[in-house]
Amino acid sequence: MNVAVLASGSGTNLQALIDSAARGELGPARLAAVGVNVPDCRAFARAQAAGIATFVVDHRQYAVRDEFDRALVAAMEPHEIDLVVLAGFMRLLGPSFLGRYGGRVINIHPALLPAFPGVHAQRQAAAYGVKLSGCTVHFVEAGVDSGPVIAQAAVPVRDDDDEASLAARILVEEHRLLPSVVRALAEGRVTADGRRVRVIESWPSGESLRTM
Amino acid sequence: MNVAVLASGSGTNLQALIDSAARGELGPARLAAVGVNVPDCRAFARAQAAGIATFVVDHRQYAVRDEFDRALVAAMEPHEIDLVVLAGFMRLLGPSFLGRYGGRVINIHPALLPAFPGVHAQRQAAAYGVKLSGCTVHFVEAGVDSGPVIAQAAVPVRDDDDEASLAARILVEEHRLLPSVVRALAEGRVTADGRRVRVIESWPSGESLRTM
Repeated sequence: MNVAVLASGSGTNLQALIDSAARGELGPARLAAVGVNVPDCRAFARAQAAGIATFVVDHRQYAVRDEFDRALVAAMEPHEIDLVVLAGFMRLLGPSFLGRYGGRVINIHPALLPAFPGVHAQRQAAAYGVKLSGCTVHFVEAGVDSGPVIAQAAVPVRDDDDEASLAARILVEEHRLLPSVVRALAEGRVTADGRRVRVIESWPSGESLRTM
Repeated sequence: MNVAVLASGSGTNLQALIDSAARGELGPARLAAVGVNVPDCRAFARAQAAGIATFVVDHRQYAVRDEFDRALVAAMEPHEIDLVVLAGFMRLLGPSFLGRYGGRVINIHPALLPAFPGVHAQRQAAAYGVKLSGCTVHFVEAGVDSGPVIAQAAVPVRDDDDEASLAARILVEEHRLLPSVVRALAEGRVTADGRRVRVIESWPSGESLRTM
């Protein structure tokens, strides 16, 4: 299974995938290409350092979003991509992209969706005062962070947390959750019935997490 | 600290409080009165069986919500209530009630707020397809399930869950969380800074819960 990772920034989730692949923990998933929309972002450098094919589609060069989408599709075509992973990719994808890759695009979001969709999810969570937050891997549909949920992980929000400390704690879980989902998808262990997504051989589910 | 519990239905959270009190686990909190708006509900019988003072304010006898609120306040006055616990109380409370007891009213909601507010939270969660849900104890303000969060507990949503099985799993956590919050409030261990609520001697917070 050829995987493309799209990123915009520091690329720590990309790095988690690279490291998982190096440890042989992505199963049949192969990191075939990394695309970025910010030419000099850290994610681009990480991909190059790992010897993964890269492409840049700079959104600032496209006046219309659909043109950006089409350019992204064109850049991906040579890599025969089976799964697209959005890992800190800060652009919304429209019909031209989702029409081509729909159902095979996943995103990781730093909140327990449907709580705190959109940007600055960790800031939203800290401001709301929740006691638990976390991250969500979900299929991407046309809405913002509203597609079917594949996996979630929770972390406590501590009394002295600010946006940065909460984001760091959530990121630890992101780096665990995303590779495990990519592997499950590559191994054909993910099935969907409407919005209910089932992952075969799921994690033991007897745990609970309580925080005051 | 005199606690009034308001309930409408089966009263299992009320029972959890009664059982905690019997085990001496509510600290200085005393279950002083139980009020119901449904005369023959199971919660009423549980309170009577436990020897707790009861009152009924039947919402169907009041054409205007504010009259219901005033009747509720009048029924509570003799019990010198310091804390009001909504435990499956299915009526919204308005200014006449919150003006009297505002800041000292808590509610338990069967979801990880701000996800799935309002009625049928477990059904909403099952339909959305989240992998984690849980319960929230929060201060009651004028909005629906939007007040500052005091405590939350998470449980996994399993592949074969329906509304009932998920509700049952969440209920186990509700029965643990609510008494612990009542005790913390009674012991003066809860402070609030805007929406950020701090509970002194909080639970160990190193845990995480991941589910796919």
